[in-house]
Amino acid sequence: MKVVAGILILLCLNFASAPVWASDALPSWREGKTKQEITSFVRRVTDRRSHDFVPQNERIAVFDNDGTLWAEQPVYFQALFVFERIRAMAAQHPEWKDTEPYKSAIGGDAKGLASSGEKGLTTLIATTHAGMTSDEFSGIVKQWISTARHPQTKKPLAEMVYQPMQELLAYLRGNGFKTYIVSGGGQDFMRPWTEEFYGIPPEQVIGSQGGLKYEVVSGVPMLVKLPDVVLIDDHAGKPVGIQRAIGRRPIFAFGNSDGDREMLEWTMAGAGPRFAGLVHHTDAKREWSYDRHSKVGTLDKALDQAKAQGWTVTDMAQDWVVIFPVAPSAP
Amino acid sequence: MKVVAGILILLCLNFASAPVWASDALPSWREGKTKQEITSFVRRVTDRRSHDFVPQNERIAVFDNDGTLWAEQPVYFQALFVFERIRAMAAQHPEWKDTEPYKSAIGGDAKGLASSGEKGLTTLIATTHAGMTSDEFSGIVKQWISTARHPQTKKPLAEMVYQPMQELLAYLRGNGFKTYIVSGGGQDFMRPWTEEFYGIPPEQVIGSQGGLKYEVVSGVPMLVKLPDVVLIDDHAGKPVGIQRAIGRRPIFAFGNSDGDREMLEWTMAGAGPRFAGLVHHTDAKREWSYDRHSKVGTLDKALDQAKAQGWTVTDMAQDWVVIFPVAPSAP
Repeated sequence: MKVVAGILILLCLNFASAPVWASDALPSWREGKTKQEITSFVRRVTDRRSHDFVPQNERIAVFDNDGTLWAEQPVYFQALFVFERIRAMAAQHPEWKDTEPYKSAIGGDAKGLASSGEKGLTTLIATTHAGMTSDEFSGIVKQWISTARHPQTKKPLAEMVYQPMQELLAYLRGNGFKTYIVSGGGQDFMRPWTEEFYGIPPEQVIGSQGGLKYEVVSGVPMLVKLPDVVLIDDHAGKPVGIQRAIGRRPIFAFGNSDGDREMLEWTMAGAGPRFAGLVHHTDAKREWSYDRHSKVGTLDKALDQAKAQGWTVTDMAQDWVVIFPVAPSAP
Repeated sequence: MKVVAGILILLCLNFASAPVWASDALPSWREGKTKQEITSFVRRVTDRRSHDFVPQNERIAVFDNDGTLWAEQPVYFQALFVFERIRAMAAQHPEWKDTEPYKSAIGGDAKGLASSGEKGLTTLIATTHAGMTSDEFSGIVKQWISTARHPQTKKPLAEMVYQPMQELLAYLRGNGFKTYIVSGGGQDFMRPWTEEFYGIPPEQVIGSQGGLKYEVVSGVPMLVKLPDVVLIDDHAGKPVGIQRAIGRRPIFAFGNSDGDREMLEWTMAGAGPRFAGLVHHTDAKREWSYDRHSKVGTLDKALDQAKAQGWTVTDMAQDWVVIFPVAPSAP
């Protein structure tokens, strides 16, 4: 019943704002400038008769994750994972309850954590993301993500993804694009669930990366995660991560914050047709409203650059019919 | 005419050794144990009724390049590129003709070069592979590979690829595998031509990697290649490179030297059906014959491990009907 009600709501919302075509691949995008810019770009690069036609193997589309494909408030969801891991590990480390940054992490105290700065964060990431094999870490993440809930909405994290962006990913893939995630988040943190959440396989997930060491222990080959950082896949690290992993310049890029500015700029600076999009969080009622002064997902310089250079800015409140997917009913 | 003659030769060779099926996807592989091990593995993992069935998204196949997909004697072909670049740059550096390692590189003197050791090689790689943008380097490589010829056979390098391995790549892709190169060679050196040579796109090429820096110069965003080394994608570096780029363990791996041992070992140590193959260079007449005592492509420990663990060893002289593709005729 819940599903049926959800579909009815979706249909009504759609009906109110635009004609419903059965063939509309982006039903959660309201008719208007933003949607038109997306679909006209895709039409141009896929039409063999267009002089903007791009061969399929060069249709590379890159997406930021936090704040672009799923929510990022009140803190990046990877921080929720770190807090829970620290809590789980605290039993073995009684000294942590009086030592920063562990103390703040155990209490879920983002402010206290902020006061221990980048060094504190690095310590926590190293503590929770290293000293085990890649396979073990992947198992821990899978277990966590299947049970974790958002601290405010109380929804499973699978329901905190943006429905319109899901449709956009599928629409691009349906038009021969290869879709990638290029996120400041941990590559190993994302890969265990991106295929299920977004239809994006691990080999198309680029993120921040730690060191890895191959060793054979008692005859068993393993990859051990090390605490050092190999790539911070944010800001200027994004074009670097893209080049290392893909080796071609994308023709389509979508982000939501200043950390995505260089990725969008790099995408737009190539020859031929190109698309740069930003998600602007403008909907305090259905999601969160923030930009220039937010600590999480700061959108300031990139917003100015978007306006100056004609990038497509998605106004969440305006452009999106729904934000989150309708929750599936229990079986 | 040349093409027709080539096809006739291929058919006759095939006919002499095995029945010819129009549907045989591996015509350059002689019927026998090696070919059977390959085809029976592929049949098992693609047959939905087999308990060894592997879903398509997990069918990852990795291949070494030098000595596995194309020849590597008398020196790795990337060394030919380095020599030619040094010669081209020497006009701007008159002091090089009396300074090692440049002097040996200019003279194409592999022995002289060997005496300046790893440091000499690193200097030459840094000199020829850095200090320019990724796009510029890619252009230089493309230009070089379209004209370079093998020092002994005098053939274009596109004709120094192994025909049976070309067929194997296509056969695997036809069976839903994603084919990757995992080579000790430079990632940026391979990517400009692997799509044309092997049908493998740049994003499926993993190799040794140098530093990269994103910067905007006079309003133009660029990625500049730096002289530092980020990953030596050889030996234990291969599983690390695979994990970073793909994030899944391959189920099929092919190499030819001790540098591939860890990649094969890592592939075989996963759960479920797995395949490890080695190319053994046994054909002094049609190619080169070398293994344990060769400086290029040393095959010693990996050969012992293959025998001990039942990996598939390809005997080039025995298993391959032809080695190099029949040269295409001029149009």
